[in-house]
Amino acid sequence: MGHGGGGAMSGELVEHVFLPAFADDDLARLADSAVLPLLGGRVAFSTDSFVVRPLFFPGGSIGDLAVNGTVNDLAMSGAEPLFLSAAFILEEGTDVTKVGAVAQRLGEAAERAGVRVVTGDTKVVETGHGDGVYVNTAGVGVVPEGVDLRPDRARPGDVVIVSGDIGVHGVAIMSVREGLQFGAEVESDCQPLHRLVSAMLDVTRDLHVLRDPTRGGVATALNEIARASGVGVEVVERSLPIPEVVANACAFLGLDPLQVANEGKLLAFVDRDHADEVLAAMRAHPAGAGSAVIGECVEAHPGMVAATTGFGASRVVDLPLGEQLPRIC
Amino acid sequence: MGHGGGGAMSGELVEHVFLPAFADDDLARLADSAVLPLLGGRVAFSTDSFVVRPLFFPGGSIGDLAVNGTVNDLAMSGAEPLFLSAAFILEEGTDVTKVGAVAQRLGEAAERAGVRVVTGDTKVVETGHGDGVYVNTAGVGVVPEGVDLRPDRARPGDVVIVSGDIGVHGVAIMSVREGLQFGAEVESDCQPLHRLVSAMLDVTRDLHVLRDPTRGGVATALNEIARASGVGVEVVERSLPIPEVVANACAFLGLDPLQVANEGKLLAFVDRDHADEVLAAMRAHPAGAGSAVIGECVEAHPGMVAATTGFGASRVVDLPLGEQLPRIC
Repeated sequence: MGHGGGGAMSGELVEHVFLPAFADDDLARLADSAVLPLLGGRVAFSTDSFVVRPLFFPGGSIGDLAVNGTVNDLAMSGAEPLFLSAAFILEEGTDVTKVGAVAQRLGEAAERAGVRVVTGDTKVVETGHGDGVYVNTAGVGVVPEGVDLRPDRARPGDVVIVSGDIGVHGVAIMSVREGLQFGAEVESDCQPLHRLVSAMLDVTRDLHVLRDPTRGGVATALNEIARASGVGVEVVERSLPIPEVVANACAFLGLDPLQVANEGKLLAFVDRDHADEVLAAMRAHPAGAGSAVIGECVEAHPGMVAATTGFGASRVVDLPLGEQLPRIC
Repeated sequence: MGHGGGGAMSGELVEHVFLPAFADDDLARLADSAVLPLLGGRVAFSTDSFVVRPLFFPGGSIGDLAVNGTVNDLAMSGAEPLFLSAAFILEEGTDVTKVGAVAQRLGEAAERAGVRVVTGDTKVVETGHGDGVYVNTAGVGVVPEGVDLRPDRARPGDVVIVSGDIGVHGVAIMSVREGLQFGAEVESDCQPLHRLVSAMLDVTRDLHVLRDPTRGGVATALNEIARASGVGVEVVERSLPIPEVVANACAFLGLDPLQVANEGKLLAFVDRDHADEVLAAMRAHPAGAGSAVIGECVEAHPGMVAATTGFGASRVVDLPLGEQLPRIC
């Protein structure tokens, strides 16, 4: 508990664990807030807390999620992510080397994504009131001129593209947590998407909607966009890029792969005239190599998502009611 | 747990609990990130998590702290606070009306401080892995031109001013948590300080250092500034505005009032030429009515804080080692 008191022990934790992991001059100044270099443009601002269990999993960690989750939220507004905050809620008794390992992974992920951790906070709660480490990040980025990405900008005729295999993060967490094997080890798809978005915006600044289908999966993201924009969305099930291991896991567990979380994929709503070129740009980027058109927006059934099944029938793709799997991110 | 799954139950929580409390059009758009209106100037950025126990206490709540804590961190850089994020970690089984009450208080505090809650997040963790509600806020503000407030800018000769009574927040939390009475009910001093700072900057943009002495109290803040600036700080104990109830509580509990937390006070390091005028401006503002000069910076004992006691002796004012009182903010 002493490490959360703001005194000498807090200072040691910051000096020996967090500062080396984030290596940032502005952070090292330890002011109450960081004053950023002048930003030329509209600022995008986002936050997420991360409570994933376990802290380390195949293909990632809570530190990677904390960076990529907020970076991707900024990227979905078309912003170039620049600065992150990192706030830790530590449970009393958590091994300091574990805290250090999380901070290290967070710092490395920030470096890979090209963002700086410039401000932070640490709190400590008693045993039984936390779970090792919870992390919150907030992010600041700059939106290029002419970019206006919003969930309410989908229009009938828009083509819906996904940037690759779906359901991978959720199945990776399930397999490690429940000790289940689905034929092959599955690694989380956790990755930053802002450079992919930048490549898409190089084709046209007039992308309509981007969203990363995290908790609640593709089904939730499509429903939210359909409602916000007042359009129908029609998905062709056969066109969905679902890896065999995800299909197997979902069949075994009785889950719909459309409702399983992703941490390194995006959905794009693009007008028909630009769709081919945007798809080509996505496939040319490592983070979008598996991109595929999965459906379109229609005037019919506004606010609803329908899927054409392999047998040619149509079914409603609904929001999951509650959680499939708690604490997936 | 279902309310944290990102599906229909999450949507209901956001729609019925959080959106009404924060009443913001950009938030209501529910994009992955908020795109802010163009900001004219350098951006200050800060974050804090709040784990205070109990959630409601005399003079405030975790919602008030979550707003004022981050607003004040921005204000300590001289920034005008403009936008907040709000991220909740809820413990499974927490009464939704309690969550709503926290959100309500947070929204009201934001309105009083003149800041907008534009982006947010909710996670739910299992019973026994949280404690009702934890809140993280991050904040974005704009720093006026010519303002350069940093913990390493204190200089020998600077006058040290505190904006009012010290130790009040800590004693308020202790009294309600431990059920102790110290002669009178003590209300937390939790309040936003950015308008006070603005009044001070109207006197001179060349204030050297501002810091709000929260966890670890005035002792920690002074030590951090002394170290960062490489100056000595000398405090006159008799000049410290310590209310009788705080003095009584500290005597009873064996605490040093200099180490007790504040949530609505600031320390200012001001060069001698401006000190009188700054002090007058502070006293003219409701949040600084009790302002007092408490000491000065010296060339002797760089990095150290010394206090002249009532008997004319000198003692070292050290950092507290660990926590006096866990989860005070």
